[in-house]
Amino acid sequence: MTQLPTPYVSVDVAVLDRNIARMASFTRERDLALRPHAKTHKCLEIARRQLAAGATGLTVATVAEAEIFVEAGCEDLFIAYPLWVDQARGARLRAVAARAAVRVGVDSAEGAQALARYAGRDVEVMVEVDSGHHRSGVRPAAAGAVALAADKAGLRVRGVFTFPGHGYGPSLAEGVAAEEAVALVDAADALRKAGFEPDVVSGGSTPTAAWSNVAALNEIRPGVYVFNDAQQVELGVCDFDEVALSVVATVVSRSADHVILDAGGKVLGADRSAWATGHGRLPDLPDARITALSEHHATVTLPPGAELPERGTTLRVVPNHVCATVNLADELVVVSGGTAVDRWAVAARGANT
Amino acid sequence: MTQLPTPYVSVDVAVLDRNIARMASFTRERDLALRPHAKTHKCLEIARRQLAAGATGLTVATVAEAEIFVEAGCEDLFIAYPLWVDQARGARLRAVAARAAVRVGVDSAEGAQALARYAGRDVEVMVEVDSGHHRSGVRPAAAGAVALAADKAGLRVRGVFTFPGHGYGPSLAEGVAAEEAVALVDAADALRKAGFEPDVVSGGSTPTAAWSNVAALNEIRPGVYVFNDAQQVELGVCDFDEVALSVVATVVSRSADHVILDAGGKVLGADRSAWATGHGRLPDLPDARITALSEHHATVTLPPGAELPERGTTLRVVPNHVCATVNLADELVVVSGGTAVDRWAVAARGANT
Repeated sequence: MTQLPTPYVSVDVAVLDRNIARMASFTRERDLALRPHAKTHKCLEIARRQLAAGATGLTVATVAEAEIFVEAGCEDLFIAYPLWVDQARGARLRAVAARAAVRVGVDSAEGAQALARYAGRDVEVMVEVDSGHHRSGVRPAAAGAVALAADKAGLRVRGVFTFPGHGYGPSLAEGVAAEEAVALVDAADALRKAGFEPDVVSGGSTPTAAWSNVAALNEIRPGVYVFNDAQQVELGVCDFDEVALSVVATVVSRSADHVILDAGGKVLGADRSAWATGHGRLPDLPDARITALSEHHATVTLPPGAELPERGTTLRVVPNHVCATVNLADELVVVSGGTAVDRWAVAARGANT
Repeated sequence: MTQLPTPYVSVDVAVLDRNIARMASFTRERDLALRPHAKTHKCLEIARRQLAAGATGLTVATVAEAEIFVEAGCEDLFIAYPLWVDQARGARLRAVAARAAVRVGVDSAEGAQALARYAGRDVEVMVEVDSGHHRSGVRPAAAGAVALAADKAGLRVRGVFTFPGHGYGPSLAEGVAAEEAVALVDAADALRKAGFEPDVVSGGSTPTAAWSNVAALNEIRPGVYVFNDAQQVELGVCDFDEVALSVVATVVSRSADHVILDAGGKVLGADRSAWATGHGRLPDLPDARITALSEHHATVTLPPGAELPERGTTLRVVPNHVCATVNLADELVVVSGGTAVDRWAVAARGANT
């Protein structure tokens, strides 16, 4: 590794490309459309690689992300979020829709009406259903009513979608993918009963992707797979050698039972699920755990008797949740064969509106 | 509130100025030097207000932060971090030290030697001691040995410091401030025994500031006080009307028992202490709790029977840990009397190296 100032975010391009190719071939073999969620990488170079590998289009979470990816030439975007659209956001959406096919999530009649009023009829809608994550989205049986309201407001209804986020837990993915399938089948039926043929039925997340029920859905929207992260390793979704992104950090302090790295929550992010074993993982010290995290300190504890790394040692940290890590960085250092070969801007960093 | 696109970070300048004035007068009355930690705000306009109110200088966490505040004219900086200095970081430190008085934390002979070798003798050092937080820093009795090593390497030893971070918990502040005082007295004694008169004995954090033992220390370095946050409210350090910063968000979705705001972890930050009641607080709905947080969704739950806000409603969210929130934002919207009057750049956002 070159002597860049730590901490910095490093992406191994060979691993990245393998991850992109693997998900592309997995979905191609199953005749599933792949619409990767770009909120994970926020990076034009990575979006282009995903599209070149056969992705149908991109998923984004905000109008600001859509603006950035359209500017870079992406022609097919799904804003998988129940936007609340006012006049200003509507004008921005219209500008995006003038340059790309745009679908927007809706989960209420009011949301659909505001979308139609301010963004016009050039955006298409996907009805969001709750498959058990209990965040946004309506019950599957209520999808028809939302579709009718959207249609009445003048919007074209393309289908239904869900995010099976409750699959983020040990041994949950298979069961949650089954719940996702049931919810999407029910929602698609509800649309048909209301007079709409759903041509897109979309689900998926990185943990549940492998369990996608192709009889129930025809599109998936995983994001994290492109890099993977410590959560995916601890969920058993991937191994460390399938993790493309890490934060490179230096040991700055050392005591009897722990060392301190210069990568804290301001570079790693502070996401930590209840089942996580710590605040990130060190692939080169698999028995180590990050037992505490502050803004600029990661406290790394090793099993009793293990030799602690020396001050000045450079170590890679795999963050718990890579989407949060990327959103803290202005750029990604691109590494090939252990050498930094490029830097990619995190073009959509902080694009929250 | 004007119709800016949500989510955005808003700072009430009247509350900010009251917070700055209150801490300035508290320390002035006790003859304590106040060296606010600028990692909280990362903002030149706020640093200038703190210095104008009588702050001795600024505390920062990284060389990159020091570079930014020196560029803005700050002449006295303490990098309260046990930097590991190589040639490149040393050159940057020398450039900063050519324009300002610079102190750097050390907690090992090796760290002091690297600092002296690469940064030269223009930086002064403060020995970091562990007062119970068990992060970086040596035991107080070991402070003399670190001072001797630094002196031997040619560095001027100015004193000792600690961060009583273990005071972040309900009802802990008073006891932890007492531990801080004991540790600093012991460390100062250790320095004297090694032949050094510590002219700076520095501690403090926002929760412990009120309990500062002026017989033990002569400088405090609180950071969060300038804005306050939900952690400080839940610790009893302040009330909501003393919180200067909030994230303005919109209700985008509504179900039987919760609403979803468009402010998730990518704008609020994901920090959550074990004792926190949720992922942030809503000062206008004090009984509401943010029971789940994802990247672009905050799930707001109200007590049974409470009326849920309508879709499209704009609400203020006070983040759990404001330092993390600021580091996600490119700018702060400055509000006076409910009207946006200015925007301040988060100049040191992401300045982690």
